Amino acid sequence: MEILLPLLNLSGTFVFAISGAMAGVNRQLDVFGVSVLAFVAGNVGGIGRDVLIGALPPAAIAHVHYSLISLTAALAVFFGHRLIDHIQSPILLFDAAGLALFAVAGSQKALEYGLPAPMAAVLGMITGIGGGMTRDVLVARVPAVLSGELYAVAALAGATLVVIGAQLAWPPVAITLVGAGVCFAIRLGALRRGWRLPVARHRK
Amino acid sequence: MEILLPLLNLSGTFVFAISGAMAGVNRQLDVFGVSVLAFVAGNVGGIGRDVLIGALPPAAIAHVHYSLISLTAALAVFFGHRLIDHIQSPILLFDAAGLALFAVAGSQKALEYGLPAPMAAVLGMITGIGGGMTRDVLVARVPAVLSGELYAVAALAGATLVVIGAQLAWPPVAITLVGAGVCFAIRLGALRRGWRLPVARHRK
Amino acid sequence: MEILLPLLNLSGTFVFAISGAMAGVNRQLDVFGVSVLAFVAGNVGGIGRDVLIGALPPAAIAHVHYSLISLTAALAVFFGHRLIDHIQSPILLFDAAGLALFAVAGSQKALEYGLPAPMAAVLGMITGIGGGMTRDVLVARVPAVLSGELYAVAALAGATLVVIGAQLAWPPVAITLVGAGVCFAIRLGALRRGWRLPVARHRK
Repeated sequence: MEILLPLLNLSGTFVFAISGAMAGVNRQLDVFGVSVLAFVAGNVGGIGRDVLIGALPPAAIAHVHYSLISLTAALAVFFGHRLIDHIQSPILLFDAAGLALFAVAGSQKALEYGLPAPMAAVLGMITGIGGGMTRDVLVARVPAVLSGELYAVAALAGATLVVIGAQLAWPPVAITLVGAGVCFAIRLGALRRGWRLPVARHRK
Repeated sequence: MEILLPLLNLSGTFVFAISGAMAGVNRQLDVFGVSVLAFVAGNVGGIGRDVLIGALPPAAIAHVHYSLISLTAALAVFFGHRLIDHIQSPILLFDAAGLALFAVAGSQKALEYGLPAPMAAVLGMITGIGGGMTRDVLVARVPAVLSGELYAVAALAGATLVVIGAQLAWPPVAITLVGAGVCFAIRLGALRRGWRLPVARHRK
Repeated sequence: MEILLPLLNLSGTFVFAISGAMAGVNRQLDVFGVSVLAFVAGNVGGIGRDVLIGALPPAAIAHVHYSLISLTAALAVFFGHRLIDHIQSPILLFDAAGLALFAVAGSQKALEYGLPAPMAAVLGMITGIGGGMTRDVLVARVPAVLSGELYAVAALAGATLVVIGAQLAWPPVAITLVGAGVCFAIRLGALRRGWRLPVARHRK
């Protein structure tokens, strides 16, 4: 787990940074704006979690790896986005992977810091949705989390599995992989098959 | 006061969460989006205050009550919003109540943490306006605080009364009720009678 | 430096608060909304930096000076904005000065708190761009940082000079003035001569 957790965080940063950089390229930002969006998408969720659990300075600020990974993702997208274009809806796919990785890593770090189990699941969700939400607000797009697709639900499901697994003392590596897989699968199902939650009947 | 302060915080969370959930129902969000808006409206103000005074992890993250109260408010509004519709402009009314409760609770917690008196009043105001502002930004509505109505002024007035009362060693329960009442009354006056502050003469 | 650093922070707060207050007057906000925008523009960058490096409560919350300076700037603009109108594009000019002052002060405070050198430069940039970005989001304007002008780049250049100077043990006062001057000059060049970074070729 001591290897797996940083690996999840760094991988989550990378795929979310890719999604942020693609959003920046689509909006015709310059190379620096693309890098800022990559850093924001890749790190705001984890920074928010670390501030909330009192782990200051946050990992993404105290260490230089996260910035370097975000910058690498930004430059790769800036100069190579034609390759990524062959994947269908690449932002959404990278975004789903980041959501899954951060949801499980976030809930595990919150448990380590002694938060009660249900709040650790909520923090996993916040870690997962924070980066993508901020990316969408900055490019003036309605955040996916509010659009009726199973976005935050997917993150909460993955984070909840991790927390339940920790309570039952299941093997951490297994539960991490299962949690991330379930989150990713729910999100893909929402994207591909249009899974949705019920909406309140509208008032006149 | 040891009973009153958590009571104010939990009541403020509930009424702000109601206002957030109503904003979500009006925007046709699904049940989860409604819950997210309820949590944001009910807790972002207090979380912001706790981060700023260094009370980490924030109460709304360290304890599960705040999430449960927000979820209860979200579900009540989601399934019962037709009942609440009978109240005129219900979002604004619940919002005014939340503003009053958080303004007095926020300034008191800031005093407890040793902040200077004027900044404790500012923090009470921030606690009061934070949740509603974030709710409005998320549903792409201009925050009431910037719309020329007496919004932040009302919060600052209530918080200032609490801080002055504490300096003069008046009975805390009395000053809390007076502070919340004054804030609520100013905000209602602004809503019902159109009280406003002067606006700068516009430049060509 | 013990005199220079607070002076930079207070001056940065003042000029950014002026820019925030002018944005509020242009948007026809009342005197209180203008004060809120002045406080936000003048202090959010520094508050964000202090939260991220764990310096809690942030200086702008723990001391009353920053609020008083912001309020002074707000009232000066509210009652005297006709005088400031004689300067061409005054918001952008005050904004550039605030960017320079905060970029160098922010990176220096981050170094003091023991952050690694590259992250201290990033924190200087965040300190510089945070207030103006939040001001622009609140008045629903696209933040300059994303508009393709050399904005964050200027902040990062100034902050990087400070960090490099500190590593090489150059005299702190000199390096501070040079860093702020370079940041201000780059930003002015971008405004006056339209300097820009390359933009990604757009995908079909």
